[in-house]
Amino acid sequence: MNFASDNIVGASAPVLEALVRANAGAMPAYGADEITKRVEAAFSRIFEREATVLLVTTGTAANALALAAAVPPYGLAVCHAESHVIDDECGAPEFFMHGAKLVGLPGTGAKLTSETVATYLKGLRRADRQMPPKALSISQVTEGGLVYSLDELAGLSAVCREHGLFLHMDGARFANALVTLGCTPAEMTWKAGVDILSFGGTKNGCLMAEAVVVFDPALVEGLAHRRKRAGQVASKGRVLSAQFEAYLADDHWLANARHANRMAALLAEGLAGTPGARLPWAVQANELFPILPRTLDEALKEAGFIYHPWSTKSLPAGEVVADSEVMIRLVTSFATEEAAVRRFIDVARSAARREAAE
Amino acid sequence: MNFASDNIVGASAPVLEALVRANAGAMPAYGADEITKRVEAAFSRIFEREATVLLVTTGTAANALALAAAVPPYGLAVCHAESHVIDDECGAPEFFMHGAKLVGLPGTGAKLTSETVATYLKGLRRADRQMPPKALSISQVTEGGLVYSLDELAGLSAVCREHGLFLHMDGARFANALVTLGCTPAEMTWKAGVDILSFGGTKNGCLMAEAVVVFDPALVEGLAHRRKRAGQVASKGRVLSAQFEAYLADDHWLANARHANRMAALLAEGLAGTPGARLPWAVQANELFPILPRTLDEALKEAGFIYHPWSTKSLPAGEVVADSEVMIRLVTSFATEEAAVRRFIDVARSAARREAAE
Amino acid sequence: MNFASDNIVGASAPVLEALVRANAGAMPAYGADEITKRVEAAFSRIFEREATVLLVTTGTAANALALAAAVPPYGLAVCHAESHVIDDECGAPEFFMHGAKLVGLPGTGAKLTSETVATYLKGLRRADRQMPPKALSISQVTEGGLVYSLDELAGLSAVCREHGLFLHMDGARFANALVTLGCTPAEMTWKAGVDILSFGGTKNGCLMAEAVVVFDPALVEGLAHRRKRAGQVASKGRVLSAQFEAYLADDHWLANARHANRMAALLAEGLAGTPGARLPWAVQANELFPILPRTLDEALKEAGFIYHPWSTKSLPAGEVVADSEVMIRLVTSFATEEAAVRRFIDVARSAARREAAE
Amino acid sequence: MNFASDNIVGASAPVLEALVRANAGAMPAYGADEITKRVEAAFSRIFEREATVLLVTTGTAANALALAAAVPPYGLAVCHAESHVIDDECGAPEFFMHGAKLVGLPGTGAKLTSETVATYLKGLRRADRQMPPKALSISQVTEGGLVYSLDELAGLSAVCREHGLFLHMDGARFANALVTLGCTPAEMTWKAGVDILSFGGTKNGCLMAEAVVVFDPALVEGLAHRRKRAGQVASKGRVLSAQFEAYLADDHWLANARHANRMAALLAEGLAGTPGARLPWAVQANELFPILPRTLDEALKEAGFIYHPWSTKSLPAGEVVADSEVMIRLVTSFATEEAAVRRFIDVARSAARREAAE
Repeated sequence: MNFASDNIVGASAPVLEALVRANAGAMPAYGADEITKRVEAAFSRIFEREATVLLVTTGTAANALALAAAVPPYGLAVCHAESHVIDDECGAPEFFMHGAKLVGLPGTGAKLTSETVATYLKGLRRADRQMPPKALSISQVTEGGLVYSLDELAGLSAVCREHGLFLHMDGARFANALVTLGCTPAEMTWKAGVDILSFGGTKNGCLMAEAVVVFDPALVEGLAHRRKRAGQVASKGRVLSAQFEAYLADDHWLANARHANRMAALLAEGLAGTPGARLPWAVQANELFPILPRTLDEALKEAGFIYHPWSTKSLPAGEVVADSEVMIRLVTSFATEEAAVRRFIDVARSAARREAAE
Repeated sequence: MNFASDNIVGASAPVLEALVRANAGAMPAYGADEITKRVEAAFSRIFEREATVLLVTTGTAANALALAAAVPPYGLAVCHAESHVIDDECGAPEFFMHGAKLVGLPGTGAKLTSETVATYLKGLRRADRQMPPKALSISQVTEGGLVYSLDELAGLSAVCREHGLFLHMDGARFANALVTLGCTPAEMTWKAGVDILSFGGTKNGCLMAEAVVVFDPALVEGLAHRRKRAGQVASKGRVLSAQFEAYLADDHWLANARHANRMAALLAEGLAGTPGARLPWAVQANELFPILPRTLDEALKEAGFIYHPWSTKSLPAGEVVADSEVMIRLVTSFATEEAAVRRFIDVARSAARREAAE
Repeated sequence: MNFASDNIVGASAPVLEALVRANAGAMPAYGADEITKRVEAAFSRIFEREATVLLVTTGTAANALALAAAVPPYGLAVCHAESHVIDDECGAPEFFMHGAKLVGLPGTGAKLTSETVATYLKGLRRADRQMPPKALSISQVTEGGLVYSLDELAGLSAVCREHGLFLHMDGARFANALVTLGCTPAEMTWKAGVDILSFGGTKNGCLMAEAVVVFDPALVEGLAHRRKRAGQVASKGRVLSAQFEAYLADDHWLANARHANRMAALLAEGLAGTPGARLPWAVQANELFPILPRTLDEALKEAGFIYHPWSTKSLPAGEVVADSEVMIRLVTSFATEEAAVRRFIDVARSAARREAAE
Repeated sequence: MNFASDNIVGASAPVLEALVRANAGAMPAYGADEITKRVEAAFSRIFEREATVLLVTTGTAANALALAAAVPPYGLAVCHAESHVIDDECGAPEFFMHGAKLVGLPGTGAKLTSETVATYLKGLRRADRQMPPKALSISQVTEGGLVYSLDELAGLSAVCREHGLFLHMDGARFANALVTLGCTPAEMTWKAGVDILSFGGTKNGCLMAEAVVVFDPALVEGLAHRRKRAGQVASKGRVLSAQFEAYLADDHWLANARHANRMAALLAEGLAGTPGARLPWAVQANELFPILPRTLDEALKEAGFIYHPWSTKSLPAGEVVADSEVMIRLVTSFATEEAAVRRFIDVARSAARREAAE
């Protein structure tokens, strides 16, 4: 009954079991353990190439480290105005980048178009007083639950190449996007021009496990030192690596994401048939942002459903949330039960019917 | 057979079980869970006063955050020249403090005397070009395995008060020091003048759980924001809080520390009767730093014992490690088995006897 | 014939002469000279109270130091979206503030209203992930050449008090605003609630002389150290202090500003009678931002006038610059000659007449 | 009568006159003026190669910018323990380098040997917890008034190459060293392996003029932006460039330095014949550090001579300053009058004779 986020539940069973198994015995500390080595190899296998992998404890740390690798202290990083890096991390990227600046651009559903980015970059002055742009950071899935297509990624990547920017992908919900596109991890990242990736595990089955995956060798230097001085090297490295090993094994991560996305699709389907409710943009992963009559919202809360109201800043042109309405966010996860989804729809439809009858 | 450190094993059974139990069900994210609230209350109970507690993932992060709370970017923090903060954290404190400087002073066994600190502070210039001292950071247990007595803490604290410095305690091995002194946590901290504490759990039974405990209200402002922007707010807060709840319950942490210290005492006792081996200073917690003939060192390694050679920079005046000798570090933990200790002593004594016979 | 800015000429005669005079003889270095002491006293006299004064070499340094005194590394500083601090200093404030963030709000003529600021502040979340607002930075004169009235300053100051923000004034053109308001320096600063001021001399008669003036004692601590570590303590302090002494003596600074403002008023008057030209907002100090037909613009350039095209981002609602038009900035200074102003008007009017005739 | 430092006098006549001349007329701001362009060309001519030159206002800023170009935030810069960068700049390098650390090594007369540096570098751990060394910073002239020979520079440079460090030279007294060696600026810098140079003008005839000269193109990127965000771009660029133009013209800078050095040599000669006085190391430029009986010191002060007592930390092995003695620093400059030197010697010798007679 809790659709507040995908980090409100613990780990999935295989991940938790792996953590318990890995607890036994002596292992070298600070990530020199064998499990960490195996996980690094697993990442290379999954991404079909050598990649430098740094396990960290939070998505904020992964994003901030990745951006610090790409952006010097006097540089700019471009992102969406509602992206997590600019809006939800209390300035972590600015801290790790040593004062470099994030610039937020607009876009429906928290998604950037290559036109928006190109226009912004072309408008910048070439002058000492202008911080030079050094990276573009996009979220795959976006904060609005949208998924960049491979073509869109290629377009953004082309703009980055033209202007000399690195391309960072915040993949807190990487798996959810991947199963939507049905492509390979390589296709959604380095083959599309992504230079450095925040790879999230926590929201999709881990208890606490995130990684920075570096594709561009130019970004590797010093990153291990940056992680250490950020207090992000786990003393008992297994606490992170054991989770990832189980997460990546047997396509467990993909199965988790598929379930989460399917639950979101079910919710979307149900809301489509609910009078008064509408979705401002397509549901493409495991989040949806319905606009509901306040009466529906109240009925759902009364029935015990938990979720957050949401920002209306990235609505499409022309879309307006009336005073009698509210825009909310619903998030599904590997642990979301279909019964809860069905109950949500039932309550929403009943309320809508009652409303219509009055 | 592994005396390399106290972070080479996983969690103790009660801590691991608590983590598994806490995995179930939905809970608010980012530390708003009930377990975190209970843990914060537990800390206040243990320290016999209101205290602000921030759970973090590593000792490096705890130290760096604590120092950043106490030292402005233009300030100095004084510490021992071989302390963890200055020597083993890749500049994390300097990063979190935004360029403030750590100054390392000498002292046998990595322990500072109040005289050393006072003399240093009195010698500083009063001038704009001189970074002003703002904090003293001590390690309880020190990097040399020594424990500051309550009198020594009071002496250091008095120097801090006189010169306007905050007193930070790096308590990565807080429990080991506490059971040695046999005093209360309050007596070893705020009653002795400690303003802010890094409270370690990981080395003494947790898998990954550290905390910053703030006693001086002047150091609280902004610290939660600093933690967030450091990427140290666990997405699923229970991963830290559940460990601490079990760690602090039923004096489990003290029992763990007592065992570790007893194992170190056994090792010390055994080495005392081993010809050729000597201890440059007393064993007061769970670490010892014997100077051994190289032949002994080789015999121990051959027998499969694992440990690190150690720096001789903090030896007492007059003590010298000969070319035929090596100084090593042995660390015991809650998980150290008495049999391993006895075997270590046996191997060492046999080697010593063989040496003598030749 | 050069209206590009007020920093394109050297020092005024009294300032230059003072610099030459002060060159002779030995004086203590690093600002311990007698002239610096006299200048500090002069500032206190002019502002009718004790104030801490730090001489620095550039306006960027003054702004960045002032903001660093007011805003911790995890904080927000609010300013206008086109202010100098956010747009023209290559991230100096973010550097000096150690990653704290500047947030730019809109407003006609680069001027903020207290409503805009209050609405923004009220909309901020109270959460660890939200950087907390700590300062408001306003420019007096604004980047659009407007002057905040005492009432407007009081309104902004009231918002700051309510939300716990310090109020910083970027006074790069302090004198120009002051003579417009006809009030005392005290009335335009601390009596209106300003806590810390960047006091500019360079644009109004000095060669290189800026100051941070601190009214709120809470902002003084450490500021001298911050200046030193910013490389802003002049080795031969007289180079700055001698300029300020002459600048502040005999109301020289006010005379300079009055002349500059009068030249701008003359330009405005002339353009008011020039068909096709219009001013999007009032001319209140020494800058004006006319919108001109491109034909006029070309005629003026051809006649040898130098000035910059300007950003149209802060136009009043409804005002649009047509494709056939251009918006420019004209700046006058203590050195602007009335003949140049008259010639500018003549050329503009001739061009306008020719245009009308075609 | 003032030997306190070489920054206690104003500018030399040619420099001041150039500044006055350059005051007239309109020029582009922010260093886009013609004089700045000519000065940049002059630097390239003097150094016999293309070099990137950035004019700044203080030596602290020059050093901090140069080090920030060479050292990433997680790196180490090695220097002498009594160097200006580590001891007299209130942490400016740490600020500009964003928390990178300075490590101070010992050496007589504040001079480093290549052996000392090599031994230190070889002893560093290869580990994430160890900040990696990235630059060596040496002072030419050293804080002890010594001058590195070309062979010594080559030796230090070879160590840098071997360990992947950039070589920075703090040339606050560059000219004084140059005339001592009698070599070309190229030979003392890039031909000897120097990658980046702080070129001082202020102590040798300018009022305020310093420069960063970059020889290694790898260090150029972003440096202009770093200068801007440090508040080091002069609004009226001529204030710096005009001084340098006169300083570098007609070998004025070399003549100034020769005079200063000659005055120091005269002082040294005079003290050599003064009973009780001794010099702990050779006088090689414009500073000397005599150890004097306190009676002599008192007589000199009584006679009105001004100078500083000095740190005895870098004395050669075996040299001790007795309780009845004091070590002082005497600095000469382009403006030191021979009469003052002679008077100093007379007073010292008279006092010594009186002492001997008693």
